[in-house]
Amino acid sequence: MPKINRYTDISEIDKEAKRDYIDRHSPFITVLGEAKKGETLQVNVKMGQEYTHPDDFDHFIESITLYDGDTKLATTTFLPGTFGNEKSHAEVTFTIRPMKKKLNLIAHGYCTKHGIWESTPVVVEVAE
Amino acid sequence: MPKINRYTDISEIDKEAKRDYIDRHSPFITVLGEAKKGETLQVNVKMGQEYTHPDDFDHFIESITLYDGDTKLATTTFLPGTFGNEKSHAEVTFTIRPMKKKLNLIAHGYCTKHGIWESTPVVVEVAE
Amino acid sequence: MPKINRYTDISEIDKEAKRDYIDRHSPFITVLGEAKKGETLQVNVKMGQEYTHPDDFDHFIESITLYDGDTKLATTTFLPGTFGNEKSHAEVTFTIRPMKKKLNLIAHGYCTKHGIWESTPVVVEVAE
Amino acid sequence: MPKINRYTDISEIDKEAKRDYIDRHSPFITVLGEAKKGETLQVNVKMGQEYTHPDDFDHFIESITLYDGDTKLATTTFLPGTFGNEKSHAEVTFTIRPMKKKLNLIAHGYCTKHGIWESTPVVVEVAE
Repeated sequence: MPKINRYTDISEIDKEAKRDYIDRHSPFITVLGEAKKGETLQVNVKMGQEYTHPDDFDHFIESITLYDGDTKLATTTFLPGTFGNEKSHAEVTFTIRPMKKKLNLIAHGYCTKHGIWESTPVVVEVAE
Repeated sequence: MPKINRYTDISEIDKEAKRDYIDRHSPFITVLGEAKKGETLQVNVKMGQEYTHPDDFDHFIESITLYDGDTKLATTTFLPGTFGNEKSHAEVTFTIRPMKKKLNLIAHGYCTKHGIWESTPVVVEVAE
Repeated sequence: MPKINRYTDISEIDKEAKRDYIDRHSPFITVLGEAKKGETLQVNVKMGQEYTHPDDFDHFIESITLYDGDTKLATTTFLPGTFGNEKSHAEVTFTIRPMKKKLNLIAHGYCTKHGIWESTPVVVEVAE
Repeated sequence: MPKINRYTDISEIDKEAKRDYIDRHSPFITVLGEAKKGETLQVNVKMGQEYTHPDDFDHFIESITLYDGDTKLATTTFLPGTFGNEKSHAEVTFTIRPMKKKLNLIAHGYCTKHGIWESTPVVVEVAE
C-alpha cells in the first residue's frame, strides 16, 4: 500500500473492459538498438500498447519512472494536456549509458485515478 | 521489483547495524494538529527517527512522496548537499487539506543506494 | 521566455484584481527560527499571502522550488486536489542545513495557467 | 536570480574553454518529424551539441524541462550515474501532441554546479 499494480498478459483475460484497463495503465519498455558498454542507449517507455489512456485534467498519466533493478535512473513528470486532452499513449524515450554486463529495466507509471503500475521487467545483455 | 522495503519494528532487532539501516531509511509520518474537513493540515515526513542518513553526493535521500491510499498527494525531490553533506534526517512538511472522513497516509522515501522505503501507514480521522 | 514573473509590492497597485493576481501567484519565504551553521533550518514557502489560489484540476500550483542563489535545494511537486479543489495557499516547509555564512534564498512557484513566479529574495545570516 | 543563463552562438566566441562551457550546458531542441494537429510529436532535448558534460555525482545535469511558451509540458529528472559517470550529453525525447497552430518550444536544463540554462526557442508550425 500504495498498491503496485502489475501487468498481466491481457490475452488471457476475457472481458474487453478489463483488458483495456490493464493495458492502458501498463508501461511497456522498448530498448532501441543494441546495448554496448559505455555507449548511450535509448529506452522508450510507453503507457499502453493496444489501448490508449485519457489525458483529462482530472485523469492523466502524471509520471513515468525507469529503474535498473532497485536503482532509479530517471523520472519524467507530465502535466495534463501534454496530449491535447485526447486519449493517447503517454510516452518518453530516456537516454542511459550502461556500464554493467546486464540491466534489469523496469518502469513505473502513475495514473492520477488508478495509482502506480509496474511494467514487466526487461533484461538487457550489455555487449563489451 | 523494484523492491518496496517496509519498516519493521527495530526494537525487535538484535543487531545494531541492522536497526540503524532500517531506521535511517524509513519515512516517519507525523500529523501536526487535528485534521478538520476543509482546513489545511500539516503532515511532516522525516527519514529516520533514531538514526541519521548520509547526505553524500553518491548516497543521499533523493525524494519523499506522500500518498493517501493509492493517491499521490505530493513529492519533494532533494539534491545532494541539502543537508550540507552531513548525516541528518531528510525531512519535509507538506500542507494538505482533507475533504474525506478518513485519510490513509503513507510515505515513500528513495535512497540512491538502497532504493524505495515505505512508512507504516497512518490513519487520520477527519473531524467534520 | 518562459517569462519569470516577479513579485512587486501590491500596496502600490490600485486595482484589486491585479493585487489578487500578483499576490496569489507569488511565493513567500519564511525562515522559521534562527539559522545556525550545521544545524537544520526550516524554510516555509507559501503561495500568496493575502489572496488564495484555485486548486482546480486545470488550474493549480504544480510546484514550488527553493534556491540558494543559483543552486537548487529542493522541489515539491503537487497534484491537483491536494487542497481539496478549494482556493488555498499551496505551501511546503523544507528542511535545509546551512554550511555557509550567508544564504540567498529565493523560490519559484509554477501555476499551470500563469507560469513561473519568483519570490523576493531572503538573505539569511548564518550564525557560527 | 537565480540567473537564467542563455545560449549564445559559440562560433563568435574565441576562447575554447568558454565555447565548451556554454555549449555543454545549453539544451538543444530537435523536433523529429512534422508537426500535425492532433498527432503525436517527438521532441528531443539534448544538453550540449559539440561538447559533453560531466556525469559526476557532485556535478551533473539534474533535469530537463520542456515549455511551450510559458506552459510547462514535461520535466525529466535525472540521477547522477545515468551516463555511467562519464562525460556525455544528457538527453531525453518527449512525446507531445500539438492542438494549436504554432508551438514556441523552449527548454531549461539544470546543472548542479552551474545552474539553469535556457535553449534558444524553436517555433513549430503545426499542419492542420
